[in-house]
Amino acid sequence: MRKVYLDNAAATPLLPEVREAMLPYLGEVFGNPSSLHDWGDKAREAVESARIQVAQLIGANPEEIIFTGSGTESNNLAIKGLALAQPGKGKHIVVSAIEHFSVLHSVQTLGKWGFEMTLVPVDKYGVVDPQAVRKSLRKDTILVSMMHANGEVGSIEPLAEISKITKERNIPFHTDAVATAGTIPLDVSELGVDSLSLAGNQFYGPKGVGALWVRKGVRIMPFLEGGVQEGGRRAGTENVPAIVGLGKAAELARVNMPARMKQLIPLRDRLLTELPAKIDHVVVTGHLKQRLPGHASFCIEFIEGEAMLMLLNSQGVAVSSGSACTSRALKASHVLIAMGIPHALAQGSILFTLGLDNSARDIDYVLEVMPPIVDRLRQMSPLYAKFIKTGKGGK
Amino acid sequence: MRKVYLDNAAATPLLPEVREAMLPYLGEVFGNPSSLHDWGDKAREAVESARIQVAQLIGANPEEIIFTGSGTESNNLAIKGLALAQPGKGKHIVVSAIEHFSVLHSVQTLGKWGFEMTLVPVDKYGVVDPQAVRKSLRKDTILVSMMHANGEVGSIEPLAEISKITKERNIPFHTDAVATAGTIPLDVSELGVDSLSLAGNQFYGPKGVGALWVRKGVRIMPFLEGGVQEGGRRAGTENVPAIVGLGKAAELARVNMPARMKQLIPLRDRLLTELPAKIDHVVVTGHLKQRLPGHASFCIEFIEGEAMLMLLNSQGVAVSSGSACTSRALKASHVLIAMGIPHALAQGSILFTLGLDNSARDIDYVLEVMPPIVDRLRQMSPLYAKFIKTGKGGK
Repeated sequence: MRKVYLDNAAATPLLPEVREAMLPYLGEVFGNPSSLHDWGDKAREAVESARIQVAQLIGANPEEIIFTGSGTESNNLAIKGLALAQPGKGKHIVVSAIEHFSVLHSVQTLGKWGFEMTLVPVDKYGVVDPQAVRKSLRKDTILVSMMHANGEVGSIEPLAEISKITKERNIPFHTDAVATAGTIPLDVSELGVDSLSLAGNQFYGPKGVGALWVRKGVRIMPFLEGGVQEGGRRAGTENVPAIVGLGKAAELARVNMPARMKQLIPLRDRLLTELPAKIDHVVVTGHLKQRLPGHASFCIEFIEGEAMLMLLNSQGVAVSSGSACTSRALKASHVLIAMGIPHALAQGSILFTLGLDNSARDIDYVLEVMPPIVDRLRQMSPLYAKFIKTGKGGK
Repeated sequence: MRKVYLDNAAATPLLPEVREAMLPYLGEVFGNPSSLHDWGDKAREAVESARIQVAQLIGANPEEIIFTGSGTESNNLAIKGLALAQPGKGKHIVVSAIEHFSVLHSVQTLGKWGFEMTLVPVDKYGVVDPQAVRKSLRKDTILVSMMHANGEVGSIEPLAEISKITKERNIPFHTDAVATAGTIPLDVSELGVDSLSLAGNQFYGPKGVGALWVRKGVRIMPFLEGGVQEGGRRAGTENVPAIVGLGKAAELARVNMPARMKQLIPLRDRLLTELPAKIDHVVVTGHLKQRLPGHASFCIEFIEGEAMLMLLNSQGVAVSSGSACTSRALKASHVLIAMGIPHALAQGSILFTLGLDNSARDIDYVLEVMPPIVDRLRQMSPLYAKFIKTGKGGK
């Protein structure tokens, strides 16, 4: 059976060059970067080289990069660290309604200490209106957080326009760029943000490593405490092999980004156009053009996304029905609900995230195996039976 | 030149078997454990096998193990998570004066939200008196944290006696066992603790991974938020290769612990006895018997530890002058100060932590190169000149 992996938003395979770069640090170069001897020096030099590679990917200065253990940790550090570093300035935080839970839950937790959250709505494409951000700002707003692109629906947000507004008001602006860094061109100065999260496992780098970029001069409280690592901003022995891998993945992403996008976009566009042509009652979710290059997402009416996922898996195809971080929660996605998609339709969410290993034949295969699976699932759906009988219940 | 690595408390090399176990997860098995398809299943199975291996090392149930990114993260999660999970029960926390900064700074940060800390003193060997813990308890004490052994001076603490007291009072008892788990026999039931931190890079496992064990029924607030991983107790994509490596390292540590201790203890004891015999004005720090097997620490009068470290490095020998987590702070260790060692003497701290790659010849080499280095440093010391002249200033 053909094996087709279309879940690159959940995890990308390591590129062979990344693995090769990491291997010495799983072997002879095992020192602790904080140690003041040759073993430590070699490890520290490797970490500092990786810092330069990551900085170059996003147009930043190396000393502004804090290595973390994941994109989730970067977001926890950013939200809690930026909010708690501004005592006395106010307790109001503005975020979009479609942020990752590492942002939303962090803001909710700050609620215990008196912080208030305003959720900015999105349109039916999952895009934030900068003017809605402006309207949400208060005198006591001390932080705005908007993701660069949403990993569930692929829409890219107008950060450069939003940052004009936050700059006017001198409010720190964080972006969760886990879905975009290493995937599309990104420059922190052009975006106008003050901090940015990224994660290695989104662009063929290792798991267990991420980074937070914080613009020089912006104050942040440490989140993981207890050591002098990362300039005292993130304690814990550096994960040297993973940091080296992140650096190499960042370098490869920067150099090869145009070629990668050229490979992925036509495959994505085939899915976005041919799947709704082959299957009735399919809705594309997210923006059609302002969209991640390898990202095709849909809601398929009268089916459950998880059931679809299982049957596709039995045909050798890996997809997801939303964020891997919530995949076992089996609730309708807060992202789709915020976009105004009805609960019943949101249950039929399916998400294809393409990667460098995918070819046109993979798309052919998916387009071939999916229609009979959808048919089979709909045969079991009481809602579909009712729709066929009455013509009611479709969107 | 001979190369002698004696800084295993800062970082241990990966055992070849650990690296071999990890490699498939840096290659073909790259899925996200949260994904609901074959790629995810293989990753999840690997994580769950590692959970069993780690649990077996410490006599715990697998479902009580939370994988983290480091020992430091485990301690942050334990201190903040246990304290914040008991609202309304009190705000008093008792810790020893020689805890790692990941514990001490976490408690200090809780001070912002009204928590109070009592530091329990240690004796001149760095050992806590259980009766001093008893005396420090208040009606509103909601957490006690005492490390299992101190990584700077090697002393092992009487946790089983302390836990009798915390149990009487029904107060959660955390231990930072980063220095002991995988190094000496350890059973959470025998220790009587309620939570325990460990780290992979302390026993020939990978960097970037640790674990927190929390006894079933003990409530803890998540620290890293935003995903359903680790039962909702620690968000972020699991670092599968590192977790697999931690599991393998735990298994090897459990099986080979008696042989390892038999190798290390005689080497340690040679350092502890022969170094003070060869060099004047040398004091062993920590307890001579209740001591980590590969741990030999000293204060050498009339020298600076960092200068010693540099000169030993120039002879191919890696040591440290304290915790790697504070090595660039260049302050006298809070551990040595708490043991009553005067500041001037504490500056001459030096720490040998032996590992499985060390042999008797390494010890011969160190005992040969050290005396002339100490002589050379003392020739430059005004304090030593004064001591020679007046006989005053020695301890």
